[in-house]
Amino acid sequence: MNILEIIEKKKNKEALSQKEIEFFVDGYTKNKIPDYQMSALLMTIVINGMNDVETAYLTEAMMNSGKKINLSSIKGIKVDKHSTGGVGDKVSLVLGPIVAACGAVFAKMSGRGLGYTGGTIDKLESIEGFNCFLNEQQFKFLLKKSNIAIIGQTDNLVPADKKIYALRDVSGTVNSLPLITSSIMSKKLSTGSDAILLDVKCGSGAFMKNINEAKQLARWMINIGKKLKKDVRAEITNMEQPLGRMIGNKNEIIEVIESLKGNGDKKFMELIYSSATTLLIQAKIVKNEKEACKLIEEVIKSGKAFNKFLELIENQGGNIELIQKTNWWKPKYKLEINATKSGYLYLKNSVILGLVAVKLGAGRNKKEDIIDNEAGIELKKVTNEKVQKNEILMVLYSSKPIDKNLSNEVKKTFEINQKPKNNKIILAKME
Amino acid sequence: MNILEIIEKKKNKEALSQKEIEFFVDGYTKNKIPDYQMSALLMTIVINGMNDVETAYLTEAMMNSGKKINLSSIKGIKVDKHSTGGVGDKVSLVLGPIVAACGAVFAKMSGRGLGYTGGTIDKLESIEGFNCFLNEQQFKFLLKKSNIAIIGQTDNLVPADKKIYALRDVSGTVNSLPLITSSIMSKKLSTGSDAILLDVKCGSGAFMKNINEAKQLARWMINIGKKLKKDVRAEITNMEQPLGRMIGNKNEIIEVIESLKGNGDKKFMELIYSSATTLLIQAKIVKNEKEACKLIEEVIKSGKAFNKFLELIENQGGNIELIQKTNWWKPKYKLEINATKSGYLYLKNSVILGLVAVKLGAGRNKKEDIIDNEAGIELKKVTNEKVQKNEILMVLYSSKPIDKNLSNEVKKTFEINQKPKNNKIILAKME
Repeated sequence: MNILEIIEKKKNKEALSQKEIEFFVDGYTKNKIPDYQMSALLMTIVINGMNDVETAYLTEAMMNSGKKINLSSIKGIKVDKHSTGGVGDKVSLVLGPIVAACGAVFAKMSGRGLGYTGGTIDKLESIEGFNCFLNEQQFKFLLKKSNIAIIGQTDNLVPADKKIYALRDVSGTVNSLPLITSSIMSKKLSTGSDAILLDVKCGSGAFMKNINEAKQLARWMINIGKKLKKDVRAEITNMEQPLGRMIGNKNEIIEVIESLKGNGDKKFMELIYSSATTLLIQAKIVKNEKEACKLIEEVIKSGKAFNKFLELIENQGGNIELIQKTNWWKPKYKLEINATKSGYLYLKNSVILGLVAVKLGAGRNKKEDIIDNEAGIELKKVTNEKVQKNEILMVLYSSKPIDKNLSNEVKKTFEINQKPKNNKIILAKME
Repeated sequence: MNILEIIEKKKNKEALSQKEIEFFVDGYTKNKIPDYQMSALLMTIVINGMNDVETAYLTEAMMNSGKKINLSSIKGIKVDKHSTGGVGDKVSLVLGPIVAACGAVFAKMSGRGLGYTGGTIDKLESIEGFNCFLNEQQFKFLLKKSNIAIIGQTDNLVPADKKIYALRDVSGTVNSLPLITSSIMSKKLSTGSDAILLDVKCGSGAFMKNINEAKQLARWMINIGKKLKKDVRAEITNMEQPLGRMIGNKNEIIEVIESLKGNGDKKFMELIYSSATTLLIQAKIVKNEKEACKLIEEVIKSGKAFNKFLELIENQGGNIELIQKTNWWKPKYKLEINATKSGYLYLKNSVILGLVAVKLGAGRNKKEDIIDNEAGIELKKVTNEKVQKNEILMVLYSSKPIDKNLSNEVKKTFEINQKPKNNKIILAKME
């Protein structure tokens, strides 16, 4: 077999065989195929596409490029959740403890944030002592003990994806359904979960700008799951505006705690209930939505969900006393943004809010950047809440003095209207 | 400007601007753009194409990537000729001396052979002492003195093409009209000729398999010439069968000498007359075909054309006494191929004949291979000549013992029929 023949085939819009796909994934991972041949091949895939069978082979070949985690020794259906990335997206940290408290095994692999989207690992690492880099034995031990554990991607998990993703990023080959699908699914499948819930973000703040694109990506990932005998379901959710009321790291952890205590933002909790319901049905803990909602309400009210969160943090070395203190989050500087008139607030550009949060220090522009855990944004008001002229809409926080000009950028992210606007959070559910 | 934006544009089938094309040609030539980005960009061009304006910009940018030869100090219209590569293609070596003897300035840049096609430089280097690597001063001096000189491509002529071609060869991006056109034309235009005749080979033995593809390539090259104010014309010629009766190096030089002396193969001379006529009209030496043919006949009959060839060889250091000796070409081994029945011969697969010649030692599989100047093939009979059963059709020659199995391969290259077949050599002329 020969890489040039494979390139030629895809250039001529032919489908590649499983052997051919394994050949180039293995060859590239082992440095036998140079970058310039791989980028040429990736470009043929971006332009000429891959069918669902090829994409399943690609996902499998990437998944098999490194060590896989085997969770078969753990009883029950192991569930995982993946979000395509959003602003203020702390969903996993609320969802995980809830479903774990309900009896599901929540085995989650998470990533760091880059650009305007935050990362679950970064948020967890704002807690003193917390460690995501468990080995397989530790991961399994905690899943058995507590039904929940969250790990970061290690070097030997899906090395093919790591290498291919880095090349795609610098060769103009990011935007491709089969390549995005295989990148996400190879990672998800390598951690050994039986069921996966995908949160496909849609809107100006997401990679998928409209519902049709988002549905297409979801459909592809669900089909790949079916081919590889995994129960994959998806929710298409609104990413025009941030999730919840906090954007940052420490402040998002505080919002997680409040949400688990029953004080969560209404829209945010709507998403949590929806996702938790799907996961509990996938885990066969409940039969239908009604049963799910009852159980979720119960674990929140009884404090079981919150205690599960504390257990998760403590299991992985985090200081749970500190995070419960009222002065844990203590940003030095703040800048308040006030309403310019009275009316109904509408938040409309989560990307800009995400970028402002990065400027405040809450995220990274480059991988090497160090995060300011105190930095972030608090939304005092959210979409469709009534506001009075001069009332505080949001507050920006940082450990460093805040550039007043940021308020001009922030002003692009909301409007104040005479009437409330349509504001659905869950746009579609697919399985 | 940014290479990823340029890749993105071409991926979306947009036309690139002159500035963008200059940016990536210059950046790649100067090692500022890495191979993996260039191969991704080349693949977008292969799949999504370039229009004629973009291709002209690309040709110009490549042409300007290195030193250009300026022939303006030499009087008259300088003509050059380019063949897309064939088997037994010694045309330039007969054509050049003829048009130079007629008064045209023949300023030719030639290449080496690779694969089944031979190279003019290799044929010339089978002559003891011959040197193609002249500097610009030497090239101009000889053109002024003798109206003819042949040089090889040096490192500082069109470095962009050298680098891009090497990458195309290993990244599956060879087959592309804009890339082929710009590669050929940037080289041709860099040597400072005013008029160029293109011999676009067509048929199973050529890169262009059918007349439409060949015409398309010719049209592109003619149009690029027009945009850059050069008189470019083209002949589409048949490459189902080899040119002339010799395939190799020393033996092709012997055929060149015989052709210039008036003893050339009929079909081969038909092509020579056609090409020479076009070049003489382009050089404004004659007004029409009739005048051209008269002049060509005259320089052959008078010996002026043959003497011009000897002058060319001597000018560039070749031993002209040796090549005129009857024992100059003395292959040690030979294998005769005989007719299996009587009838009219039809040669039909020049690629296989070219590959057999390479196996005999007359060509290279890899750039580093060393050529056996004695090796080659002699066609005792050509298409539409009557042959008797057991009569010798062709003879294979080499300095090494010849594998008898080669005769089986050679048998695929001809058929013997009851009637002669249609056999046109010039399929179209374009300007």
